[in-house]
Amino acid sequence: MNVTARGRTQHYRTVAFDRARNAVLLIEQRLLPHEFKIVATKNFRETAAAIRDMIVRGAGAIGATAAYGLAQGALTFPGHDLPKFCRHVEAVYQTLKAARPTAVDPVNAMNGVRAVMRAGRTVVEQQSLALAAAEEFANEDVRHCEEIGRHGAKLIRSGMKILTHCNAGWLAFVDVGSATAPMYAAQAQGKKFHVFCDETRPRSQGATLTAWELAQQKVSHQIIADNAAGHLMQRGEINLVIVGSDRTLGRTGEVANKIGTYTKAVLAKRHGIPFYVAIPLSTIDWNLKRGFDIPIEERCESEILGAWGVAERLKGGKRIYIRVANPTSGARNPGFDVTPPDLIRGIITPVGIFKPRELWKNRCKLGFAD
Amino acid sequence: MNVTARGRTQHYRTVAFDRARNAVLLIEQRLLPHEFKIVATKNFRETAAAIRDMIVRGAGAIGATAAYGLAQGALTFPGHDLPKFCRHVEAVYQTLKAARPTAVDPVNAMNGVRAVMRAGRTVVEQQSLALAAAEEFANEDVRHCEEIGRHGAKLIRSGMKILTHCNAGWLAFVDVGSATAPMYAAQAQGKKFHVFCDETRPRSQGATLTAWELAQQKVSHQIIADNAAGHLMQRGEINLVIVGSDRTLGRTGEVANKIGTYTKAVLAKRHGIPFYVAIPLSTIDWNLKRGFDIPIEERCESEILGAWGVAERLKGGKRIYIRVANPTSGARNPGFDVTPPDLIRGIITPVGIFKPRELWKNRCKLGFAD
Repeated sequence: MNVTARGRTQHYRTVAFDRARNAVLLIEQRLLPHEFKIVATKNFRETAAAIRDMIVRGAGAIGATAAYGLAQGALTFPGHDLPKFCRHVEAVYQTLKAARPTAVDPVNAMNGVRAVMRAGRTVVEQQSLALAAAEEFANEDVRHCEEIGRHGAKLIRSGMKILTHCNAGWLAFVDVGSATAPMYAAQAQGKKFHVFCDETRPRSQGATLTAWELAQQKVSHQIIADNAAGHLMQRGEINLVIVGSDRTLGRTGEVANKIGTYTKAVLAKRHGIPFYVAIPLSTIDWNLKRGFDIPIEERCESEILGAWGVAERLKGGKRIYIRVANPTSGARNPGFDVTPPDLIRGIITPVGIFKPRELWKNRCKLGFAD
Repeated sequence: MNVTARGRTQHYRTVAFDRARNAVLLIEQRLLPHEFKIVATKNFRETAAAIRDMIVRGAGAIGATAAYGLAQGALTFPGHDLPKFCRHVEAVYQTLKAARPTAVDPVNAMNGVRAVMRAGRTVVEQQSLALAAAEEFANEDVRHCEEIGRHGAKLIRSGMKILTHCNAGWLAFVDVGSATAPMYAAQAQGKKFHVFCDETRPRSQGATLTAWELAQQKVSHQIIADNAAGHLMQRGEINLVIVGSDRTLGRTGEVANKIGTYTKAVLAKRHGIPFYVAIPLSTIDWNLKRGFDIPIEERCESEILGAWGVAERLKGGKRIYIRVANPTSGARNPGFDVTPPDLIRGIITPVGIFKPRELWKNRCKLGFAD
């Protein structure tokens, strides 16, 4: 999407590849929203470090980063010895995989690249196939998000006020995003609407990333406390809710997403406000049979007990951590929650909008592979 | 309640009076939870400033502070000229009233003190009646909170997990508090339970004040993000919700309270968890006919866009403000919301627990004056 930095507006992907330098180009997300910077990783080890150190985050974005990282690693192999090359690629694969051990996207993305590479009969052929496959992975991520946008934009009418939670925007993907895709598509169609971004405590991805994205795209928006959505719904100030998902159960239609999503769904139901979840197909888990079995990560207490931000009075504008809470109190910090299908009006996917309980019936369209 | 500071545990009221020094003693609430300090105001002007500058906040607490401030001002009058004394008291009254112009509690408290004073036939008589009346106002506030505790404690069983929102604790009153009163009473009865304190963004009164209070009283508790209560309810980890109220409509049973209260009530309803509101009688508004007509204050954007806390790396431990959000985004910041009676299991008052729709029927018991 477009970013205006130092007075210049330019299109950026969250993840891209620079052939000339054999570098993966990443938006340094840890500095956002206070500073915009592109990082170029010089080699696959730096790419793995970028994933590990959260320079890049979000399912689609880390998938593409790992795919590019694998190609980047493959391209630096000097000789023509295919068995040696294969061992080298395996080492690159393991390094990138270890960068975010619990994430499934880097592994799926790299497996896709490796499957394409195998068609090459020489090292050079495999090297160029690797890069082509990584590029294709990234392009497909963008196309899928654009398709989510095309389907989802139909839900948006001019004058609407839309609530979103956390960041399921283009920073979490290669471009466009999932929950934000319908908004950008509707904007391109000339529709005028307003977005409320939940702050999304404790990590504040709504106030930082989503708000930054929407500001860059000049989408009218305001940040609200996570506490305020209920009141705004009660006063008729929210007409539509669109969120993303970390994992959607294909068998039940249950949606795991950032903590607080469930609360917004319950509120939307009470007020008869349509609640939609926008997802790429890779988010669908076809195996798990109960949402209750989705492991809910308990994150560190310090996230709840304080906040990160920029102290305007301090030099340098570096982000610092402040302790907000009582120093002798502890915290509970579940990172995700699960929203049941009865609260969800529809799941917006690249191949259309489905009732959550009808995902399984439509599993062939939705990329289910037995 | 008890406070442990510098290794010593001692009982403190939020507001007290020191006859020897003719000073109002206040817990400096702006320093909490990071520092505990008692401020002694030297004269009624300093007392007014303490109200204005939020050293003291909370309905009961500012009522008692104004009552004591009026007595303090009356006591410094030197001569025996009654008409002059009355003019002096009027000036004190106006100064204290102007300290928090929208609050009703200081005015009600001071009117009570003045009504008692009038029985005195000399300046000295009126002076001593003023102090006695202020003392009685504070004691009555404590007794009412204790009665709320006595009635509310019946709702708490050992093993329960209780959610509370914002701070309706003893810092908001002279002692004991409203929403916390049942907890302290249950604790005194030997019941063991656990409290989840909502952080209560944007001003974080739950994470700062309520958590500090509960820690001082050694009540088992944890702070949670405002986003987390829904998930905990879904997993059966919350059995009871008790909150306070800024204004409760006697005619309809609607409850205005800190933003986010309504959301918790909607969630509690979905999970069949009893939701109670604890209030002193002064909170009941017998005039207003619709909750929709309660003015909802829109507070400043900076509360949403950042946070206040202590940067441990900085010297002095002073609270600083950090900007969390995207610098080019704005915010909406409604300070309160209104919870309808269908979501409220009961209103805990000093004279018993009532269904919200039965307040009007019981208006005589509840202090309604036609």
